[in-house]
Amino acid sequence: MKMHTSSIPLGVVGATGYTGLEVLRVLSGHDGVHVAFATSESQAGEPSGVVGLDLVDARSAPLDGVELVFLCLPHGAAVPWAERALAAGKRVVDLTADHRPGSGRDADAVYGMADLEGEKVRCARLVANPGCYPTGVQLALQPLVKHGMLKPGAPVVVNAASGVTGAGRTPKRELLFAEVAGDYRAYATGNGHRHLLEMRARLPGVPLLFQPHLLPLARGILETIYLPVAEGVDAARIRTAWVDAYAGAATIRVTDGVPRLVDVVDSDALVLGASDNAGLAGEVVTLMVAFDNLGKGAAGQAVQNMNLMLGFEPERGLRC
Amino acid sequence: MKMHTSSIPLGVVGATGYTGLEVLRVLSGHDGVHVAFATSESQAGEPSGVVGLDLVDARSAPLDGVELVFLCLPHGAAVPWAERALAAGKRVVDLTADHRPGSGRDADAVYGMADLEGEKVRCARLVANPGCYPTGVQLALQPLVKHGMLKPGAPVVVNAASGVTGAGRTPKRELLFAEVAGDYRAYATGNGHRHLLEMRARLPGVPLLFQPHLLPLARGILETIYLPVAEGVDAARIRTAWVDAYAGAATIRVTDGVPRLVDVVDSDALVLGASDNAGLAGEVVTLMVAFDNLGKGAAGQAVQNMNLMLGFEPERGLRC
Amino acid sequence: MKMHTSSIPLGVVGATGYTGLEVLRVLSGHDGVHVAFATSESQAGEPSGVVGLDLVDARSAPLDGVELVFLCLPHGAAVPWAERALAAGKRVVDLTADHRPGSGRDADAVYGMADLEGEKVRCARLVANPGCYPTGVQLALQPLVKHGMLKPGAPVVVNAASGVTGAGRTPKRELLFAEVAGDYRAYATGNGHRHLLEMRARLPGVPLLFQPHLLPLARGILETIYLPVAEGVDAARIRTAWVDAYAGAATIRVTDGVPRLVDVVDSDALVLGASDNAGLAGEVVTLMVAFDNLGKGAAGQAVQNMNLMLGFEPERGLRC
Amino acid sequence: MKMHTSSIPLGVVGATGYTGLEVLRVLSGHDGVHVAFATSESQAGEPSGVVGLDLVDARSAPLDGVELVFLCLPHGAAVPWAERALAAGKRVVDLTADHRPGSGRDADAVYGMADLEGEKVRCARLVANPGCYPTGVQLALQPLVKHGMLKPGAPVVVNAASGVTGAGRTPKRELLFAEVAGDYRAYATGNGHRHLLEMRARLPGVPLLFQPHLLPLARGILETIYLPVAEGVDAARIRTAWVDAYAGAATIRVTDGVPRLVDVVDSDALVLGASDNAGLAGEVVTLMVAFDNLGKGAAGQAVQNMNLMLGFEPERGLRC
Repeated sequence: MKMHTSSIPLGVVGATGYTGLEVLRVLSGHDGVHVAFATSESQAGEPSGVVGLDLVDARSAPLDGVELVFLCLPHGAAVPWAERALAAGKRVVDLTADHRPGSGRDADAVYGMADLEGEKVRCARLVANPGCYPTGVQLALQPLVKHGMLKPGAPVVVNAASGVTGAGRTPKRELLFAEVAGDYRAYATGNGHRHLLEMRARLPGVPLLFQPHLLPLARGILETIYLPVAEGVDAARIRTAWVDAYAGAATIRVTDGVPRLVDVVDSDALVLGASDNAGLAGEVVTLMVAFDNLGKGAAGQAVQNMNLMLGFEPERGLRC
Repeated sequence: MKMHTSSIPLGVVGATGYTGLEVLRVLSGHDGVHVAFATSESQAGEPSGVVGLDLVDARSAPLDGVELVFLCLPHGAAVPWAERALAAGKRVVDLTADHRPGSGRDADAVYGMADLEGEKVRCARLVANPGCYPTGVQLALQPLVKHGMLKPGAPVVVNAASGVTGAGRTPKRELLFAEVAGDYRAYATGNGHRHLLEMRARLPGVPLLFQPHLLPLARGILETIYLPVAEGVDAARIRTAWVDAYAGAATIRVTDGVPRLVDVVDSDALVLGASDNAGLAGEVVTLMVAFDNLGKGAAGQAVQNMNLMLGFEPERGLRC
Repeated sequence: MKMHTSSIPLGVVGATGYTGLEVLRVLSGHDGVHVAFATSESQAGEPSGVVGLDLVDARSAPLDGVELVFLCLPHGAAVPWAERALAAGKRVVDLTADHRPGSGRDADAVYGMADLEGEKVRCARLVANPGCYPTGVQLALQPLVKHGMLKPGAPVVVNAASGVTGAGRTPKRELLFAEVAGDYRAYATGNGHRHLLEMRARLPGVPLLFQPHLLPLARGILETIYLPVAEGVDAARIRTAWVDAYAGAATIRVTDGVPRLVDVVDSDALVLGASDNAGLAGEVVTLMVAFDNLGKGAAGQAVQNMNLMLGFEPERGLRC
Repeated sequence: MKMHTSSIPLGVVGATGYTGLEVLRVLSGHDGVHVAFATSESQAGEPSGVVGLDLVDARSAPLDGVELVFLCLPHGAAVPWAERALAAGKRVVDLTADHRPGSGRDADAVYGMADLEGEKVRCARLVANPGCYPTGVQLALQPLVKHGMLKPGAPVVVNAASGVTGAGRTPKRELLFAEVAGDYRAYATGNGHRHLLEMRARLPGVPLLFQPHLLPLARGILETIYLPVAEGVDAARIRTAWVDAYAGAATIRVTDGVPRLVDVVDSDALVLGASDNAGLAGEVVTLMVAFDNLGKGAAGQAVQNMNLMLGFEPERGLRC
């Protein structure tokens, strides 16, 4: 582990969207780094409100003065910024989908599942921060795949529900308060969500059915996973596999009870639960994964990746 | 159809719980009946607020003056009331679970799935009004079972989400505003919800996995059903089966889009949708059923049953 | 009162904003009229979802076939439409601010406070439908002004709180779900709300301090009014003045209790309450006015004005 | 300032109500103290969920092992506990109303307005932690009273709105989710709230009209105060008086903008704002005070008082 005698300067590109704001919030509780610049096209010149800085427009961002930048841009806008930062010798954590599996550019980046493959992240120049839904699905399923606990070839149903910040901060009619309050509905039906590319690439051979729903909440994701299991697998063995896999992971907790959003919202924690089903014992185990889409699902894991890249303990500054 | 030259008097037993209040609301829009008494132990003597009557305690209820009573009591309390009313020659719609399949007393009652088996209801003395979750599951699945559209023996996952009025109006800590707001969680995990008895009795041979969740909403149910299908079955054929089955049912609508709560809350309507899943075509079709747990899931169907019993058109007075 | 042997055709211009949608909803429950066209620029060609019609763009609207049009446009856009409709011999209810007191064009229209000055409305060609906040303030204060119940010259504080539909359906960042949920704040501070012009014009000589707040709710307004009173005036006398003033007004109710939003939301009703204040008896009486900003505060009063213009009973079709 | 070489042990009596839970949360972020015991009658034996302790019943609480106890009990239950703790030589911060001005027992305690009279708190054995509403009113008005900025004798209207956690965690029908969601209403009308005793005792000679409202939110208070001012007083001078009064107070912020709940919820911060009113300049200035009823309004100020009593910096561990 490197020693830092002083605080490391960082940049946040796109600091007024929900993920950018959350990266600033997490970093403001981290005593080993500081935000040297934060960009916004729409609010350049205004104070950031989270850290003690005025926002700057992207062209004015003093890239030279930082060691690492977070890219919190709309999907599709990160590639030129990543190239520019890498060319300047800076390291990059990209929170967009632009370098994730399925993007066509994933070969240029290390995929940053910090709790599963943290070693690869340490030396990365460019980290593709995972999507929110894929983070939960992978943390739930990867240890089980590794132990051969899934029934081969059987469809795995992921019924997901998310707060609306997952859809970004660009004004759209369907995200207005009066459209969302009092409602609950599915979207991206027909196995059509773009996060499926990412999940499938990371869980090859697992037939996934992923159905997200929109909750009348600002934040939080609960994924309820209906898992056909291999012979002899039950909820207790699954919990044991998780406990083993995440022994050193301070942000991940395995519960005998029921994961719920209030336990994880406004934090970087993730809670896993499993239960056997009466009448279907030995056939289908129900898994639940709760986390904050902006926390572990975005900014929390991004800062965890940064910690690995800069030689800090992985959970430094995180809200566990 | 009988002719009514004047309004028929009814009684509502338990008129200050959520289902009782909703029965009063629906009846207040029905021009062929009127509420002759409404009971409440805790608020006897106070005005009902929904209909122009003072509430009475149960013992003071003038049972003689009515033709039919709705029982909107806590589960377990309906049996003596049903006996008393039947002995007095009155007809009964029981909104509790006390006479539903799985209760041990279902043989005493006609099960009131008004849109599927309305003929049996017409002559019934005692109708067991179906549970909220089972109403949606049956209306979605029964026509498909009839046409052999399910893959035999394959587990059918019902992922349900409901507003909190489904849990009743008795004060409990977990139902307080500050406990529910901002949260979303599963309950009755492990295939342990008592409505399963009712669903299984009505869908014999279908292996059900039923997992309900609590929404931070007052009202509304969305059931997302992951249905393994028989060969050749797809979403289009399922929608056709529904359209055929519910051709005369004014409260049921089949959509090509996505059913959502705002379309059905505060009404007696129910919306059905289906979609094929990319990568799993021909294997699993996703069904969605949206309705108001207090509307079609309780009071709406109860009044529909009453309409059948009293010789009105089935949807008279309902909010479609 | 005119007799109608058949349903009167109407047009709704701007049928996909919140007020336009609500006008359609109210009209769908009115058995003396029908919507012959409903316009939308963004959704022309799509079904309306509320009434059984496809939306048309404004230029295609068959103005000739209707007797009256509702203008549910953004503020500022109603003037040319009103001119066009009047020139074609049609009558107009304008729900925008464009012809209200303070607009500079109020002389061209009759101001439609249906419960206070309904007689003027009957023969009007163009009615300016009052703003939501001014509706509540006037219905509370006008009868008291008439009886000299206000302490002359003393500031009257109107502390108002409204759901977000009052701000319209145009996507703006500050109206996104995640910005409004969990928040409560004042806006238009410094006595700067544009509805003040309308209130002052209608309550000359009353020094108003009007402070609105944004509630984390879709619908509903509660105005809490702190009224310095003339000698001898108390809450009881105020309630009596209201009861007298609104004896024939089916949508207005005076309560001895506390008006609350759930009593009025999704309806065209308005509830008035008053209380004396311990320690300040005879000095300041607190008034409360609750109503739905889209109901009595917009579409409800608009249809009430239409009823007056077309010779129906004032409350026909309204949700009281 | 005393030096602490090790962490100071504390007790929390009543650790499963909303204020008790919040005291635990704040203390869990304080590095100079630790919770040695936390009591609960209903959940004794269960883990606390916030700190790493099992809850104990009150009789089993090891009072000897702590230096100070927080009393987070229902109003009325704190007196015997305070006596017992004081007799054992322990110091006490009482979060109930039992020792506040107006209780009849206020002479036994030091009133803990930490930012206004912190010096008195340092040596206190028993501190009465102020009520939530009075905290905001006093922090807004005390500096203005001191500078003679109020118009003598003129009623000061405090229009307050609060989230429901202020009403406690005991299950009551009117606090159920389905009763609160979608609603907004006044309570304790007629200047009848018991916090008035406390406010009047602390602001003698100021005629207060205090009207609280219930928000459909878990947390947060906004008080909108309509202040008749002495000659020459305006919003700018008021802000200056606040800035001077709270120069060293890290939890208090004065804004030129509009205080809003999202800026303070889940924190111990309080934001003050003021605006002049068009048409009433020099007559009435509108003040706004936003804070979290459980933060600055309860646990935040309680820990601030504890800091003063134990010799820490006043804001140590607080969430500013």
